[in-house]
Amino acid sequence: MRRRPLRSALTLSALLLSAAWPATADTSAAQAAQEQRFDSLIKPADLKAWMEHMAAEPNQVGSPHDKANAAWQVAQFQSWGWDAHIESFDVLYPTPLHETLELTGPTPFRATLTEPPIASDPSSAHLAGALPAYVAYQGDGDVTAPLVYVNYGMPEDYAALARLGVDVRGKIVIARYGKGWRGLKPKLAQDHGAIGCIIYSDPHEDGYSLDRAYPDGPMRPPHGIQRGSVADMPLYPGDPLTPGIAPVPGAARLARADAKTILKIPTLPISYADAQVFLGALGGRLAPANFRGALPITYFVGPSAVPVHLEVKSDWQLHPIYDVIATLKGAAYPDQWVVRGNHHDGWVFGASDPLSGQVALMAEAQAIGALVKDGYRPKRTLVYASWDAEEPMLVGSTAWTSAHDDELRRHAVAYINTDGNARGIFSAEASADFGHAISQVADSVTDPETGVSVGVRARAALRVAATGDAAEDEAREAAKLAALPGHDLPVGPLGSGSDYSSFVQHLGVPAINLAFGEEGNAGGVYHSAYDSYTHHETWVDPGFVYDSLLAKTAGRLVLNLADADLPPQNPGGLAEAVSSYIAQIKKLAAHEREEAVTRAALLGAHAYTLAADPTRPMVPPPALDAVPVFDFAKLDAAAARLAKTATRYEVALKAKGPGLNVTAREKLQAVMLTIDETLAPPVGLPGRPWYKNLVSAPGRFTGYGAKTLPGVREAIEQRRWADAKLYIGVTADALDAYTSALEQAIAILTK
Amino acid sequence: MRRRPLRSALTLSALLLSAAWPATADTSAAQAAQEQRFDSLIKPADLKAWMEHMAAEPNQVGSPHDKANAAWQVAQFQSWGWDAHIESFDVLYPTPLHETLELTGPTPFRATLTEPPIASDPSSAHLAGALPAYVAYQGDGDVTAPLVYVNYGMPEDYAALARLGVDVRGKIVIARYGKGWRGLKPKLAQDHGAIGCIIYSDPHEDGYSLDRAYPDGPMRPPHGIQRGSVADMPLYPGDPLTPGIAPVPGAARLARADAKTILKIPTLPISYADAQVFLGALGGRLAPANFRGALPITYFVGPSAVPVHLEVKSDWQLHPIYDVIATLKGAAYPDQWVVRGNHHDGWVFGASDPLSGQVALMAEAQAIGALVKDGYRPKRTLVYASWDAEEPMLVGSTAWTSAHDDELRRHAVAYINTDGNARGIFSAEASADFGHAISQVADSVTDPETGVSVGVRARAALRVAATGDAAEDEAREAAKLAALPGHDLPVGPLGSGSDYSSFVQHLGVPAINLAFGEEGNAGGVYHSAYDSYTHHETWVDPGFVYDSLLAKTAGRLVLNLADADLPPQNPGGLAEAVSSYIAQIKKLAAHEREEAVTRAALLGAHAYTLAADPTRPMVPPPALDAVPVFDFAKLDAAAARLAKTATRYEVALKAKGPGLNVTAREKLQAVMLTIDETLAPPVGLPGRPWYKNLVSAPGRFTGYGAKTLPGVREAIEQRRWADAKLYIGVTADALDAYTSALEQAIAILTK
Repeated sequence: MRRRPLRSALTLSALLLSAAWPATADTSAAQAAQEQRFDSLIKPADLKAWMEHMAAEPNQVGSPHDKANAAWQVAQFQSWGWDAHIESFDVLYPTPLHETLELTGPTPFRATLTEPPIASDPSSAHLAGALPAYVAYQGDGDVTAPLVYVNYGMPEDYAALARLGVDVRGKIVIARYGKGWRGLKPKLAQDHGAIGCIIYSDPHEDGYSLDRAYPDGPMRPPHGIQRGSVADMPLYPGDPLTPGIAPVPGAARLARADAKTILKIPTLPISYADAQVFLGALGGRLAPANFRGALPITYFVGPSAVPVHLEVKSDWQLHPIYDVIATLKGAAYPDQWVVRGNHHDGWVFGASDPLSGQVALMAEAQAIGALVKDGYRPKRTLVYASWDAEEPMLVGSTAWTSAHDDELRRHAVAYINTDGNARGIFSAEASADFGHAISQVADSVTDPETGVSVGVRARAALRVAATGDAAEDEAREAAKLAALPGHDLPVGPLGSGSDYSSFVQHLGVPAINLAFGEEGNAGGVYHSAYDSYTHHETWVDPGFVYDSLLAKTAGRLVLNLADADLPPQNPGGLAEAVSSYIAQIKKLAAHEREEAVTRAALLGAHAYTLAADPTRPMVPPPALDAVPVFDFAKLDAAAARLAKTATRYEVALKAKGPGLNVTAREKLQAVMLTIDETLAPPVGLPGRPWYKNLVSAPGRFTGYGAKTLPGVREAIEQRRWADAKLYIGVTADALDAYTSALEQAIAILTK
Repeated sequence: MRRRPLRSALTLSALLLSAAWPATADTSAAQAAQEQRFDSLIKPADLKAWMEHMAAEPNQVGSPHDKANAAWQVAQFQSWGWDAHIESFDVLYPTPLHETLELTGPTPFRATLTEPPIASDPSSAHLAGALPAYVAYQGDGDVTAPLVYVNYGMPEDYAALARLGVDVRGKIVIARYGKGWRGLKPKLAQDHGAIGCIIYSDPHEDGYSLDRAYPDGPMRPPHGIQRGSVADMPLYPGDPLTPGIAPVPGAARLARADAKTILKIPTLPISYADAQVFLGALGGRLAPANFRGALPITYFVGPSAVPVHLEVKSDWQLHPIYDVIATLKGAAYPDQWVVRGNHHDGWVFGASDPLSGQVALMAEAQAIGALVKDGYRPKRTLVYASWDAEEPMLVGSTAWTSAHDDELRRHAVAYINTDGNARGIFSAEASADFGHAISQVADSVTDPETGVSVGVRARAALRVAATGDAAEDEAREAAKLAALPGHDLPVGPLGSGSDYSSFVQHLGVPAINLAFGEEGNAGGVYHSAYDSYTHHETWVDPGFVYDSLLAKTAGRLVLNLADADLPPQNPGGLAEAVSSYIAQIKKLAAHEREEAVTRAALLGAHAYTLAADPTRPMVPPPALDAVPVFDFAKLDAAAARLAKTATRYEVALKAKGPGLNVTAREKLQAVMLTIDETLAPPVGLPGRPWYKNLVSAPGRFTGYGAKTLPGVREAIEQRRWADAKLYIGVTADALDAYTSALEQAIAILTK
C-alpha cells in the first residue's frame, strides 16, 4: 500500500566494517546449484498470468473477486505442495453509500468524483463492483462551510497559516497529497477545528509535472483519484474496534464511537481536474511559496467567499476478511518459523499495488514447492501469507499477528515483507541486525538491466544520490557506508505502510521489507482505478522482469534464513545504526535549542512584525520554550556496551560457531531467536503504547516515514521534555537487554 | 534596469564592531533642522506628476520622448538653481526591423510577439513609437532548426543536458528567464553551438505562480514580454564599438564584426502564452526536475520533431544619446565631487524601471535647490546625472565616465546610484568601506510602514530571512551581523546591472546603490509594456511613498558625504568583508577538491551508469581535474594587515580627526579621496581587463550577481588554477596598497 520509499529517506544499519561474517547458509556447490534451480523455476509468464487473473476485476476488501482470489490462492499453494488454508476475521470496514462535494454560489460546481475510462486500458471501462473513490475510516458527515487550502496539511503548514492569520475552525480544508502520510491530513485538520477535509492529487506530486499522464505516460491523469485509509495508524493499525486483540467472532469490540483511530470529520479524495475548480474559487491570502503546486493557477489559501458542501455517508458493517496462510514444515528446526508475506487486496484492480509483489511471493512458493518435490526440505518451517485487508490499514496481518502473538514471539525468526514492486534499484528496510543477511543476498542476485548484482547497483545508486549540494546528511552518510569496501549495503529503518508493522513494532519480531523501484513511475496511478494490469505491464515492469527478480531475491533470503545453522543477526549493524541515531538526536536537540534562542531574540526585537509587508501582515510565530540540556550518558553508555559486545559476539561466532555441538547450537539459536524482542519492551511509546519497538516506529507526524529511537527523538521534536529524559533511560535499558542476551550467546559460544 | 536584489544574495561589509565612528556630518541642531527641512521639500505629488509626464509615451533610447525628457530635465534642474546641460554621445544602438518566430510542421504556429492592451491601463493601448519587443545586441539571422529547451540556459543546465546526451549544436534553444542574467543565455547557447535563441518568461518566475497577473495583480500577464540587453556585459559594458574610450564624434570605433560584446546568433524574447506552444511541441527526453516551470505541461528538452524558424533583422545605426548633467559647486572643497545618478531611458514606458528612481533623484535636486535658495551651500561639489541608454547596457554612464575618467579618479568622493524602486525594505550594495556612511543614514530615516528607522527594519528583515533550515550561509552571516548591537547594517557587494558599474569596477571610484523593495512585486512586469504609470501607482508604490523615501534617504547620504569634514570611509568594514570572502573562497576550494575526489571515485565504480535507468540513459559526468592546494598565506597576511591598520586608523581618526588643522585635514582628505582606487589596479580581471576592481565584480557566469575577490574566486570556480594562484598575489597586493594608503592617513593623523 505504501508508495515506493525514496532513496534519500534511507538511514543506516550495517555490519561492523571489519567483521567478516560467517555465512548464514551453506555456501557449498550444492547450494549454488539449488539457487540456480530455484531461479530457473521463477517464470515471468507465470507472474504475468497470475496478475492478469487477480487484477481482472476490482479486488478491494469485501469484493467477490478479493474473496475468490484468496480461495484461488489456497488452491494454488496446495497444488504446489503446501499446507494452505484461509484464516478469516471479522473487521470493521466502512464502504461509501453516498458522497457529495460541491461548490455553491453563483457558479456552482459538483465534483465528478469519478475516473472515466481510458480507451487503451480495458480495465478502466469495467468498474462494476468497484467502490466509489473514498478514504476509509473518515468520519461521515454533511457539512457546508468556506474552504481553506492547507498545502500538504502537515503541522508546519498550519504554522504557516497561523502566521497569515488564517485558521480552519469551522472550515472545510483542502489538502494536497504528498509530504506526510494521507491520514494525517484529516486528523490534523480535525485537531485544528476543521469540519471537513478534501484531499487531492496535485500534478506537482504525481501528475503531468513529472511525466506524461496515463495512457501517454505513467503519471496520474486529470481525473485520477488516490484512495486510501485515513485510520489513525500512528496510534495503532489494524481493525479499529479490536486494538491489540484478534478480531475473531465474539471478540470484545469497542463501540465505533470509542475507536480512537476512526476520524471524526467527513473526508473525500478528489482528482486535480476537480480540485482546480475548488482551488480556483479561493481568494484571501496568497499562498506561501511552498504551497504552490503545478496547476496553472495562482494558489490562495482562502477562505473561499462561497461555501463548499461536503457529504459522506458510509455503511459501517463488519466484513469478513480472508488471510491465506500456507506452511511447509521445517525438517531440522520446525519450531523456528520464517514468515513471508504480501497482501492480496487492492483499492480497485491493484495491479502494481499489491499484486506485483503478490505474484512474486507466489512464484517463490511455486518454486519452493518444486524443490520440495525434487527432495529438498527447508530446515526451518516456512509460513507464506497472503494478507487480506492491508489497504484499510494492515488489518489482515494485524489480525493474524494478534491471533498468533505468543507463537510468533516464540517461533518467528523473521518476517519478510513485500508489497507493490517496480523496475530499477533494490532497496530494503529492516531491523538493523538483519542488514548482513540482506546484503549477502543482494550481492548474489544479478540485476538484469546492468549485469552487476542488485547490491552493487543499489550501492551505486546511493552514492550517486548523495552527490550534489542538495543531498541531505543522511543520504551522504548512507553513500559513505555504501562506498566502504566490504561494508554491507545500508538498509533503512522500518516505518509503516505495509504488513511488517505488527511483527516488528508490536511483537518485536525482526522484519525485512524488500522492493525494486525508482524506474517507471508506478506511483503515478497509485491507489486509482488506473493501477491496472495494462498500466503495470506497459509502464511499470514490462515483461515482469523485476517482479520475477523480486521473487528470486526474497526467495533466496527466505531459503538462507530457513537453512542456516547459525543465527542470522549481525548485532554490529544494530550498534552502528544506534550510534548514528544518537548522533542525529544530539544534533536535533542542539538545533532545537538554537532555534528557541533565535526565536526569542527575534520576537524581542519585533523582527517578524518589522520585516512583514503591512499590506500582507504576518503574525509573529509563537515563542518556543527553552530546550533543556539532556543527559545522554545512559544512552551513550548502552550504545558503547552494545558495540563492544557485538564485536565480541561476531568474533566468537566466527571462531566457534561452525564447530558448536548440537546442544550448544540449539541453545544459541534459542537466545538469538528472541533477542530482537528486547528492543520492543512492554512499555511502548509515550501516548501510543501499541508501538513497542524503541529502535524504529512510524512517526506520529510523518505517518509511514520512520522515526528512529522514537521514544527520545519524537519527544524532543514535540517538546515533551520529561518524556525525552524518561525515554533516554527506557531506550538505554532496551539496548542493555539486547546486550545482555548477546552476552548469553557469547557465553554459549565460548564455554 | 536590474531587478530588485534578493535579500538572500546579500553579502557582507560592515564596520568593526567596537569602533564608535566619528560622525561624517555635522550632528548639530542646525543639521537636524536642515534634514527636516529637506524632507519637507520632498513631495509625493511632485514625484507622481513627474512620472506621469516622463512615462506618458515610450521613452526608449532614440525615441522622441526620451530626448524630450532629457531636455525637460535640464530645464527642471536649471529652474531649481543647478548648472545643467546635456552631454551627448553617439553609440551603436540596434533596433529591430523584422522579427519572425514560427513553429513549422503540421500544426504551424506563429508567435504573436506582441503585448495586447489591457483595458484598465490606458498606456498599454498607446504603443505608438515603441519598438517591437526584442533584445539588444543579439546577432541577427534567419535560421530554421529543431528546438531544444535548456532551462535557464546556465552552465549547469548544459551539463545536465550533456548527461541526457542532448546537445544544441545546430539547434535553436529556448531558455526561460531567471537564475542567471539574460545575456548569458544566448551567449552560452552560441558557445555551445546553437544557431538561435528564444528567451521566455515562465510563470514560475514572475507570472501567475507568484501572484495574480496584471491587471488583477502585479504579475506578468500571459503575453507580457521581457525586453533587455544581451550585450556581453561581463566582458565590458557600454557602447560595444568603443570599449574603454568615450564614444564621441570621431572616436576610433571598432567594426561591428570586431565588437566582442555583440552576440552572433539571432535571439528573441517571448511571452509564456507564446512559449507554451513551442514547449508543448517538444518531445525527446523528459526535462530534469529542476527544469520544470509552472506551465500546465510536461516539460521535455527536445529536440522538437518539427523545426522552428527564427528570423531577426536589425537596423545597426549609431544613435545620439543624451546624458543630463547638473552640478552645484561646493563651497569648501569644490574639487571633491559627490556624484549621484539614475537613468531616464526605459524599455517602453519605464515607470518602475527607471523612473521611480529618477523622480526620487529629481526630488532631491529640487529640495537641494530650495535649500540653496535658503542660503545653504554644500561643502563639496554635487554632480547629479540623469543617464540615457542604461538599458542597452549602461551605455550613457559608461560613455560619460570614459569621457571624464581622469577627473573622476581625481575628484570623485563616491558615486551614489539608484534605479527602479519599490515598496518595503531598504537595501544597499556598496564599496565595503562605505557601510558606515550608509548605515548612519539608514538609521536616521523613518520607515513609513513601521515607524522605525529603515535601518532597524532592514536589520529585522535580514534576521528573519535567515531563519528556517533553507537559509544559506551568507544570509545567516548577514543576520548575525545585523543582530550585533552597534554593528553597521550589512551591505552587499556590487555586481552589475546599473550605472555604478563603470565607476566602481573600471575607475575604482567607490560606489553605492540604494533601493527599497521586496513588497508589491514590481518585477512582474519588468521590461514589458505593462511597466506603466498605472501599474506602478496601483501595485508598486501607491502614493509614491517609498519613491519619496528613496529621495530622503539618498539625499541625506549625498548631503552627509558633501558636508562632512572628515573622510567617510570605514576601512574596518572592508577588512571585515575581505576576511569573510577569503573564508568563503577557502571553503569553495575545499568543496571543489572534495567534489573532484568523489567524482573520480564514482566514475571509477561506474556508479553513474549503474544507477541510471537504461530506458532513460544518463551519460556519466566528466572527470574533474584535481584541485591543487592553494597557498592563501599572502592573502591572509594582507587581510590581517588591513584589519589591524583599519583599527589603528579608526582609533586615530576618532581621537585626532576632529582637532586636525586645515592643512592636515586637506592632506588626509587627499589620501582618502583616492584610497579606494588601490583596489582596482590596472591589471584587471583575467580575460576581461576592463573590470579592474579586485574586491567585487559581476560574475562571468552570473552576470549581474556579484563575485567577491573575483580574480581568485572565479579562477577556482572555472578551474583556472594558475590564475587562482596568480590572483591570490595580485589581490593581496591591492589590499596592501590600500593598507599603505591607510598608513599614510594614520601618519597624517598622528603627526
